[in-house]
Amino acid sequence: MCRFVLYRGEPITIDTLTTRPKNSIIHQSFQSQLGEQPLNGDGFGLAWYVPDLSDSPALFRSTQPAWNDRNLQQLAEVSKSHLILAHVRAATGDTDVSQANCHPFVGGRFVFMHNGSVANYHQVRRGWMQTLRDESYDQVRGQTDSELMFALFLGELGDSNGIGPMSEAVQNVIRRAERTRTEQKIEEPNFLNLAVTNGREVVATRFASDNATPRSLFFAQGEGCECEDGEFLTKTTGTHQQEPSRAASTVIASEPLSDQPLWTEVAPGQLLTISSDDRLTNEPIRI
Amino acid sequence: MCRFVLYRGEPITIDTLTTRPKNSIIHQSFQSQLGEQPLNGDGFGLAWYVPDLSDSPALFRSTQPAWNDRNLQQLAEVSKSHLILAHVRAATGDTDVSQANCHPFVGGRFVFMHNGSVANYHQVRRGWMQTLRDESYDQVRGQTDSELMFALFLGELGDSNGIGPMSEAVQNVIRRAERTRTEQKIEEPNFLNLAVTNGREVVATRFASDNATPRSLFFAQGEGCECEDGEFLTKTTGTHQQEPSRAASTVIASEPLSDQPLWTEVAPGQLLTISSDDRLTNEPIRI
Amino acid sequence: MCRFVLYRGEPITIDTLTTRPKNSIIHQSFQSQLGEQPLNGDGFGLAWYVPDLSDSPALFRSTQPAWNDRNLQQLAEVSKSHLILAHVRAATGDTDVSQANCHPFVGGRFVFMHNGSVANYHQVRRGWMQTLRDESYDQVRGQTDSELMFALFLGELGDSNGIGPMSEAVQNVIRRAERTRTEQKIEEPNFLNLAVTNGREVVATRFASDNATPRSLFFAQGEGCECEDGEFLTKTTGTHQQEPSRAASTVIASEPLSDQPLWTEVAPGQLLTISSDDRLTNEPIRI
Amino acid sequence: MCRFVLYRGEPITIDTLTTRPKNSIIHQSFQSQLGEQPLNGDGFGLAWYVPDLSDSPALFRSTQPAWNDRNLQQLAEVSKSHLILAHVRAATGDTDVSQANCHPFVGGRFVFMHNGSVANYHQVRRGWMQTLRDESYDQVRGQTDSELMFALFLGELGDSNGIGPMSEAVQNVIRRAERTRTEQKIEEPNFLNLAVTNGREVVATRFASDNATPRSLFFAQGEGCECEDGEFLTKTTGTHQQEPSRAASTVIASEPLSDQPLWTEVAPGQLLTISSDDRLTNEPIRI
Repeated sequence: MCRFVLYRGEPITIDTLTTRPKNSIIHQSFQSQLGEQPLNGDGFGLAWYVPDLSDSPALFRSTQPAWNDRNLQQLAEVSKSHLILAHVRAATGDTDVSQANCHPFVGGRFVFMHNGSVANYHQVRRGWMQTLRDESYDQVRGQTDSELMFALFLGELGDSNGIGPMSEAVQNVIRRAERTRTEQKIEEPNFLNLAVTNGREVVATRFASDNATPRSLFFAQGEGCECEDGEFLTKTTGTHQQEPSRAASTVIASEPLSDQPLWTEVAPGQLLTISSDDRLTNEPIRI
Repeated sequence: MCRFVLYRGEPITIDTLTTRPKNSIIHQSFQSQLGEQPLNGDGFGLAWYVPDLSDSPALFRSTQPAWNDRNLQQLAEVSKSHLILAHVRAATGDTDVSQANCHPFVGGRFVFMHNGSVANYHQVRRGWMQTLRDESYDQVRGQTDSELMFALFLGELGDSNGIGPMSEAVQNVIRRAERTRTEQKIEEPNFLNLAVTNGREVVATRFASDNATPRSLFFAQGEGCECEDGEFLTKTTGTHQQEPSRAASTVIASEPLSDQPLWTEVAPGQLLTISSDDRLTNEPIRI
Repeated sequence: MCRFVLYRGEPITIDTLTTRPKNSIIHQSFQSQLGEQPLNGDGFGLAWYVPDLSDSPALFRSTQPAWNDRNLQQLAEVSKSHLILAHVRAATGDTDVSQANCHPFVGGRFVFMHNGSVANYHQVRRGWMQTLRDESYDQVRGQTDSELMFALFLGELGDSNGIGPMSEAVQNVIRRAERTRTEQKIEEPNFLNLAVTNGREVVATRFASDNATPRSLFFAQGEGCECEDGEFLTKTTGTHQQEPSRAASTVIASEPLSDQPLWTEVAPGQLLTISSDDRLTNEPIRI
Repeated sequence: MCRFVLYRGEPITIDTLTTRPKNSIIHQSFQSQLGEQPLNGDGFGLAWYVPDLSDSPALFRSTQPAWNDRNLQQLAEVSKSHLILAHVRAATGDTDVSQANCHPFVGGRFVFMHNGSVANYHQVRRGWMQTLRDESYDQVRGQTDSELMFALFLGELGDSNGIGPMSEAVQNVIRRAERTRTEQKIEEPNFLNLAVTNGREVVATRFASDNATPRSLFFAQGEGCECEDGEFLTKTTGTHQQEPSRAASTVIASEPLSDQPLWTEVAPGQLLTISSDDRLTNEPIRI
């Protein structure tokens, strides 16, 4: 069912998220603690921003399991960024294990990932495809519900940018999914943990239809972060766990990367944002 | 631009087409003689029928170049069939090198391959997708013009089968492509060398729009075939080169597998069929 | 730590072992019941004999996990054989996930697979390599202890063949491993569940050094076998479970493919053979 | 037969070498101008140094052809370095297309690549392996002559470093190859275009046995470099083409990346070095 992690803050090497923590995203590829299943071995992906060189992110995706990809390990050690997204995939439905189906998805300066599933996607897909504008239609290269939601997101966003429009566009995608589910009388819930960034700001959601329990989602904040002997640590500011606030570094992750008590669970139905001045907000998704 | 080969006749091991001839389909993957370019290194595929076990064919596709895939070599030596299709791909446009984009395409008992391109496919695709029935729509997994033409073909065919309906459906696909090209005032020609089979009968075309020269296409016939020291041979019946007729074995190939004078070039605008009693016919495509 | 299955008997399609049973070898690739760990996702391999076409077997190996390889599924449905070997790999030590490291290994007409590990292989390897004759030395293409034991086996066998020499050669390899372990004062045990065939006869072992518990190994026999609704069945002859004897079909597997009470656990330290007239014997390994 | 390129100088994005020049290393993967054959499609590799993060280089290798690997394109656009090595491979002999066989090879802080072949390597390999110290023996993971020469190089180097010892070690490797060739009465020449760096200094050779013509090798120098509209340019200092000297940026490449008259052919039998203060020297290899 996939697991993901997103980091924004003081530049860190990618292995701080992917390899070194006890419950790194690579560890989650074969032994996820809180996922629907322990195994997320159907490919992986990594995106990170290098703003000095490009507004668009670097992207590395592979159909190999994350745990046995040497390129992933080697790149993670010598690539540093202030904004990193990583994803390990468990294929759903009848989708191929192909690079085009690996998250994250990149469109221009935007990066998108998803943990969950659109209910009865098979039945939903064609109708959604038809609503896309031509340029968004052409951006859909694979078979996943996730990539199509990214195309819908980009369509909703249009030429806008910034935290408000991104937040609105993400919620519009969730509303669309819920409306379709109602119209088509689908009983299975949608599971829509989404994360998107424009290279500066971040929006993430934890959502499931009706009273279903959404996929797990956590965050941690601090004045920086590091990983020593497998323990992922943020230098905590003391107050952030009660009231999300401004911090130099924020991690949003499907499950904690470590056992330290620095992780806050995101409540179901919440939307997180990280502003360009490092402020974390937390508000209900408006459906 | 791709190259393909199709064999129907006395059972042979697959390596008789893929590995052993001097100009085998594997050789064409890196040194095609008559292709638009020598290199067809963006994946390959192999389909063959084992009627005792299944109406649907075996399918083996890979994103590796055909020349360096050891599985291909090993399978070809110990797999035997009376009906074999092989294809080496040169990706066109912006399509991925993925298994879903590798030919041949299989749907139920049918197998389809293509050498050429739909003109301005980027602009054509969405309109064609919208005309598909839901079950055909869902069969399209990749990004190629070829796979979409196969879905159109299956839609045209409906529940029919047999050489007449297959022949008609193939021509309807070509007519559709030509009509779209006219309607959208596309100047670039369509190149539509197609091959399709239901496991018994075969239809193949050599076609290009207007007076453009189609991609190359040849056939050879005999009472059987073999490959010795790199020389692919049919045991010729003497008369087949002048008037296509009944023969125990027929090869249709983008280019001759050998220098022997057993190959007949298919004239532009022609449609070949092989019947279930081994009769080869050759008629003009009716647009 | 790997899992394997070997079948010899009435010809069956490969999916009878690989895909259709509830606990098929593909199922064991992500959810092994009795393995050291549930996950065997570091590549797989398949070998099967088609004696009409070649003394050497067909071989298909891939670095993808078995559970998501479409070629494996498609080949398994339309390939039939009386002698089939399949293996799913969990990489040990620092070995690559590469085709050369995937089991089964093929040398001429022989096929070999291994479940377990040579203790401190890192320290053992060089000495063993130096004892190989040049032709065996060149056959070692990968990095695994398993492939090197196969080279040792072929060296022991020399020009001999047949169940007696194969059985002796396998035991010589085990003796060598034990002797090296003693000489080098290695405390970790060797785990040597081995399976080898020449295309007619089969030898398999369940072995661990000292009193360590070897990796699991089972067999089942019958007058044939089939798989219905996920249940793998042999048509039992009534007596085979008490006294291994002659039966038309024999399966040797790291773990049962189904819950049916047709599986007999191989005792630690035993060597199984299947003769060319279908007789199963079971004797202690002589170290 | 392979092609390679090495850059040392003002930091540039990797695509300045790999993607953007008309005759970039990716272009050479399918249409090499001066190679033994146009095609170098059996995998590729990329290494680059990020000294702020690690003494060891980043390494990215893949068995896909360079021309169709999207990861390569995406990484090259957003990775910047002052010291970059790239290689496209044409497999020789019976070696696998595997990551372990892709150049460049990395050992600690050192990176090594090779264009050419050791004559009768099959016959030479075992003897060379036996001379390796244990730690070098274990570093050899693949099957290529190139990787083994790198292990020999590291063995020659021991704990030394710097341009003198590297230069001496490279020449010792060449001497060894020549001596073995003489001793074993091999008629085929060795082709040993080698490039090695410790992250600061560079040594490269153009060599073939006897009077054979070595594989092509060129260099270009300038006060920096750039690529515009496919034209790779160095800002030339005017004098460098006559007398190799100090320049802010140096490229060493199997063939020119562009038609500009900035490329100097390295004479057969020469050894180039680039010092840590950007000085290029050119001297005869002493055999």
